[in-house]
Amino acid sequence: MSFSYLTHLECPKCHEEYSPDEVQQLCHCGSPLLVRYNLEEAKANFTKETLASRENSLWRYHEVLPVKNPGNVVTLGEGMTPFVQMEKLGQHIDVPNLFIKDEGIIPTGSFKTRGASVGISKAKEIGVKQLAMPTNGNAGAAWALYSARAGIKATIVMPVDAPTITRKEVAVSGGDLHLVNGLISDAGKIVGQLVKEQGIYDASTLKEPYRIEGKKTMGYEILEQMNWEVPDVILYPTGGGVGLIGIYKAILELRELGWIKDDKLPRLVAVQAEGCAPIVKAWEEGKTESEFWENSETSAFGINVPKALGDFLVLEGIYATNGCAIAVSENDITAAQKEIARFEGNFICPEGAATFAAARILREKDWIKADETVICLNTGAGIKYPETVDIENLPLLQPGEAIKN
Amino acid sequence: MSFSYLTHLECPKCHEEYSPDEVQQLCHCGSPLLVRYNLEEAKANFTKETLASRENSLWRYHEVLPVKNPGNVVTLGEGMTPFVQMEKLGQHIDVPNLFIKDEGIIPTGSFKTRGASVGISKAKEIGVKQLAMPTNGNAGAAWALYSARAGIKATIVMPVDAPTITRKEVAVSGGDLHLVNGLISDAGKIVGQLVKEQGIYDASTLKEPYRIEGKKTMGYEILEQMNWEVPDVILYPTGGGVGLIGIYKAILELRELGWIKDDKLPRLVAVQAEGCAPIVKAWEEGKTESEFWENSETSAFGINVPKALGDFLVLEGIYATNGCAIAVSENDITAAQKEIARFEGNFICPEGAATFAAARILREKDWIKADETVICLNTGAGIKYPETVDIENLPLLQPGEAIKN
Repeated sequence: MSFSYLTHLECPKCHEEYSPDEVQQLCHCGSPLLVRYNLEEAKANFTKETLASRENSLWRYHEVLPVKNPGNVVTLGEGMTPFVQMEKLGQHIDVPNLFIKDEGIIPTGSFKTRGASVGISKAKEIGVKQLAMPTNGNAGAAWALYSARAGIKATIVMPVDAPTITRKEVAVSGGDLHLVNGLISDAGKIVGQLVKEQGIYDASTLKEPYRIEGKKTMGYEILEQMNWEVPDVILYPTGGGVGLIGIYKAILELRELGWIKDDKLPRLVAVQAEGCAPIVKAWEEGKTESEFWENSETSAFGINVPKALGDFLVLEGIYATNGCAIAVSENDITAAQKEIARFEGNFICPEGAATFAAARILREKDWIKADETVICLNTGAGIKYPETVDIENLPLLQPGEAIKN
Repeated sequence: MSFSYLTHLECPKCHEEYSPDEVQQLCHCGSPLLVRYNLEEAKANFTKETLASRENSLWRYHEVLPVKNPGNVVTLGEGMTPFVQMEKLGQHIDVPNLFIKDEGIIPTGSFKTRGASVGISKAKEIGVKQLAMPTNGNAGAAWALYSARAGIKATIVMPVDAPTITRKEVAVSGGDLHLVNGLISDAGKIVGQLVKEQGIYDASTLKEPYRIEGKKTMGYEILEQMNWEVPDVILYPTGGGVGLIGIYKAILELRELGWIKDDKLPRLVAVQAEGCAPIVKAWEEGKTESEFWENSETSAFGINVPKALGDFLVLEGIYATNGCAIAVSENDITAAQKEIARFEGNFICPEGAATFAAARILREKDWIKADETVICLNTGAGIKYPETVDIENLPLLQPGEAIKN
């Protein structure tokens, strides 16, 4: 009985294999690496039934996570986020079986925490002392805080327009924070240079192999929370796309484990903003890779990613599951965010709101059928985005004054 | 087998009993009411073992919650928050068995959500259509969002100095928001007048009996997460004090259920800020009630409560468990908040940080022994308090520029 059934790293492009016991970044062919396990062997001890009594975090799936020694696990109790039906909103948009997977309810308030917990744990296991990464905010916050817990030095570079709160999170963790007057792609170049010059660990999206493993636990959890019934559609706000890649990987692993039936895949939907929709463009043109999106812009800052390193894996997940890619407008995002709070009581981030806006459109187009089970993934807490809510003309009462009707 | 073993409401002062099937506020003697259950009968079906397969929220304890019909439960998946050891910080302050119960990791980002979920569910069950409440921010945010989900109209009155984000949460929910140029006690008077004039449901702290029931689930969870071993000390940041009252109630119920041993109670510690410490003053003077604290002030806004309606119940919980009450300085709060993030990766709220500052002092005084198991309750997410982190002199890089060392 092993804590992890990790075997090796594999390049999905050229199939070269690498050892997971030392630092690995990209494959020499330039592709991200994927983590592989001996699932055949895992099956014997790792069963659905064993999960019931496990701890209430993503580490309940430790057999299919890359950390070999439990002593290296860096955890703040992340995962097993709420999975809740949206009855009123579902009726309103004629998707009665509408659910939210709410990744705002997790340490650091965004789904980036999953990648940070697993990525930092593995970094600790292989002896990393210092790392650097570009970020649109939430990932940097999560990696900085988990790095602090692990005793790793973290250098974080983020656009000056990234949500202010994420800057504060890096600062309070004692992380080495830098702002750049540009996009995440500009931050990426700065990190690239630093990494090259100083040989420190590059924790950029997909440049280390373990972040996907954290993200894939969203797929495991959705299936466990659905009692291992495969849903029809999962909508995911797509920037770097690691979550979608991870969920797709989880589905394939769950099939191999024999925990879900082989005859159905959830259709995976990549949701982007009209102001930054490279995956949508590639999908519409039937391509397997995306092109850099010039002058990208959206209030849903986390999905302002003009070119994702893993774009080919995202597109593979979409094509293989008969999914689709769709862009929504800024107005639709803002309206959806408000509507979700008023109907359901969830205050979610604009990226998450985009998935509900997309579900409505896809239902109108009849791409989603009324009887289908649809899951919208909210990637972060609305409380991290105070600027998305306007308050106008609120009168100030004096003590003793009465509320006027 | 009942969903709930609720029997009646009881006044802890004059012992008058009330029906839980209609709206009840305070006892006619002026005291808050407590909820009672038939725990003897509950025992037969409600066992520790049944919990393992239950859903991952506070509703796993539904037999000892006041909602009779599961259809009335208003939930966003709240509860079962992280319970995590703080090894490095624990060593640093010589409390090796130091744990955080992290109530920031919950919908709306604060422990107020527990009271809102249970309180709103019961309000829905007894037919409430409209409610009003004063708040220091977080409770108003939680009650407004859960009211939206339940279809109840919520009027929320908060001090203009309450955390800005909580204002936004009420606004996005569509709640009826009012600001007052004063303290929560001033907001309370405004609500009192509104309630009196219009006969709407008064959801003020302890003026409805069900919020405690939500809060008490923190006690159930701590014990479940400790595998039903009673800890030595629980520190709680005390404003209205409902959480402390609730945890004490949970301990007594768990004894009656026979789930924990009878020979040990956790010492309950009420932590306040030096600028607003009415419970500490009362405890130091051996009194059973507190006096109004004039000109109260603290950055830990949630515990800026000059006089709590349930003060006598808080003090009873402290005396009965051989606990204590302690005030900490603003500097200690700020220093603790930063230290916790740097050692452990948790970005917590100032109220929560106060409990760690208190643990350090109580250890220095040897009131806490080095071998004792100590739990600090963090009541909210640091991301709701961006103003608690200062960032100075952060240089702005231009695209292409390198990080200087």
